[in-house]
Amino acid sequence: MKVLVTGGAGLVGNMLCKKLLEAGSEVFCVDNFTLGTKRHLQEFESQKGFEFQNWDVSQKDWFTPLVGKKFDLVVHLAANSDISLGFENPQMEFSRTLDTTFQTLLAARKLQIPNFIFSSTSAVYGANPEFPTPETTAKMYPVSHYGAAKLASENFISSFVENYGLKAWVFRFGNVVGEKLTHGVIYDFTKKLKQNPETLTVLGNGQQTKTYIHVEDCVDGILHAFQKSPAGTSHSEKFQVFNLSSEGATSVKQIAEKTVATLAPKTKIQYGSSSVGWVGDVARTQLDVRKIMALGWKPKFDSKASVFKSIEDHSSWVKAL
Amino acid sequence: MKVLVTGGAGLVGNMLCKKLLEAGSEVFCVDNFTLGTKRHLQEFESQKGFEFQNWDVSQKDWFTPLVGKKFDLVVHLAANSDISLGFENPQMEFSRTLDTTFQTLLAARKLQIPNFIFSSTSAVYGANPEFPTPETTAKMYPVSHYGAAKLASENFISSFVENYGLKAWVFRFGNVVGEKLTHGVIYDFTKKLKQNPETLTVLGNGQQTKTYIHVEDCVDGILHAFQKSPAGTSHSEKFQVFNLSSEGATSVKQIAEKTVATLAPKTKIQYGSSSVGWVGDVARTQLDVRKIMALGWKPKFDSKASVFKSIEDHSSWVKAL
Repeated sequence: MKVLVTGGAGLVGNMLCKKLLEAGSEVFCVDNFTLGTKRHLQEFESQKGFEFQNWDVSQKDWFTPLVGKKFDLVVHLAANSDISLGFENPQMEFSRTLDTTFQTLLAARKLQIPNFIFSSTSAVYGANPEFPTPETTAKMYPVSHYGAAKLASENFISSFVENYGLKAWVFRFGNVVGEKLTHGVIYDFTKKLKQNPETLTVLGNGQQTKTYIHVEDCVDGILHAFQKSPAGTSHSEKFQVFNLSSEGATSVKQIAEKTVATLAPKTKIQYGSSSVGWVGDVARTQLDVRKIMALGWKPKFDSKASVFKSIEDHSSWVKAL
Repeated sequence: MKVLVTGGAGLVGNMLCKKLLEAGSEVFCVDNFTLGTKRHLQEFESQKGFEFQNWDVSQKDWFTPLVGKKFDLVVHLAANSDISLGFENPQMEFSRTLDTTFQTLLAARKLQIPNFIFSSTSAVYGANPEFPTPETTAKMYPVSHYGAAKLASENFISSFVENYGLKAWVFRFGNVVGEKLTHGVIYDFTKKLKQNPETLTVLGNGQQTKTYIHVEDCVDGILHAFQKSPAGTSHSEKFQVFNLSSEGATSVKQIAEKTVATLAPKTKIQYGSSSVGWVGDVARTQLDVRKIMALGWKPKFDSKASVFKSIEDHSSWVKAL
């Protein structure tokens, strides 16, 4: 299988490229290192079947040099993904999280790539009161520009499916964690503790409780659903949406305590007073993952185990850099 | 009240400016005549409180000349709105129907306009099987790029409401009709009959059945809901969504027959074989309008009366040009 991967130098992209290459696929990887890092690609550089270009996929016609190449699948991961940055700069979020998707859809149309996998997010549900949230929930009113841009991306994937015969698999991720984090709460805490080992300041009251998934489970889930749930003929069978996370949820307090215990046990943790960490944050996410589990997929790690393993692995990885 | 209107030279914009001016509001109207027409503004040119600029609101920072002006409300109508054009040119649809909204949201943020009214569409529901479709339907998978761009617009309005304290009223219109049409089935049929009075070729089998609303009822509904349903404090009370149409539905066959009877009774009508008129068209729309009717609004015309009146008024208007 020949696969075009956008955002291949991020946490999920790194694991995806690894698993695809192990399975014998050819990977054409694109990233511009906005959040991803060159370090995440080093292990593939000498591998057969791996190619890389430093391109910005939010730009019009970024795919022109690929005309004439054949791909079986595009996996579109490129996005801003650091949600808290959107408040100050909505135009940045629009460009990095939505323009990237739209231009990659145009790529799929132009290059006639039949299959499209998209990394969406639990943030599309916004402040949704239904827990655990199923894919078919009625109220989807995003509260972050990131959530809005991801849901907007889904909307265009839906219309491209109808208009040009594309087949799509959309995965609404919980918070993906692992060794090679590029952003997010564990990444932030680790960085803060390095700068100031005396006090860890937490955004919000620490009670924010979200669902986490380990990057290994995440990539395994994507490839599992792609294989086990082939497209049918109706719109809903060609545009398939899956929640993808572990079943549980973990609080920011648990994460703060575990990070401190791992890195600097004497650190004092200082909580804020708000129920959310920033404007556009949500206090709780928990996904109903029965749809993807009905395909025979099961995560190896629950939410807490995903988080705890990632804290340990990430801190070791950072130390070794 | 000082109101900023984008897309003010279209069918809805024309009626809205008229009603606002009659009610004593000041109107700052923006349009670039992509679909709207200068003729629709002539009646306002000499009126006190009316100002116009030929600006393209899809462009970044289009609102810079307005910095320092105060508005109470923005009504954002500017969009492509000729749905069938999107198939060939998705980038055009993205630019005219989504970039316009995003840049107008940035305008509302920059100019600190507290209230935002948006013209959305029944096309956000896509090929939705639930009829009549309520605002809270679970499955919203657009099949046209127009529907995708409008739903994407709604998503960003939702995140702007959360991030910057904006209050929003979103109206998902049925097919709006009236004398001063700029596109759509009645406009197309009238134009075709002028070019060829012998045969009227219909896209699709004529059985497509959609809900129509007269532009007078449409504008009346917008202003009614804005007045009668003030914003509350929770997200769902600040981001309010209303279906806006008549309760009935009218087939393309009925429209073809009435247009022929009005303009050229001897014309032969030739139907296609497809259940939809073009890729991305939907065979049936019918909206559940109980939410807006619960505010005491009631359309003067049902779907058939809206259509028949518009056919008569539009053909007279075209003749008089």
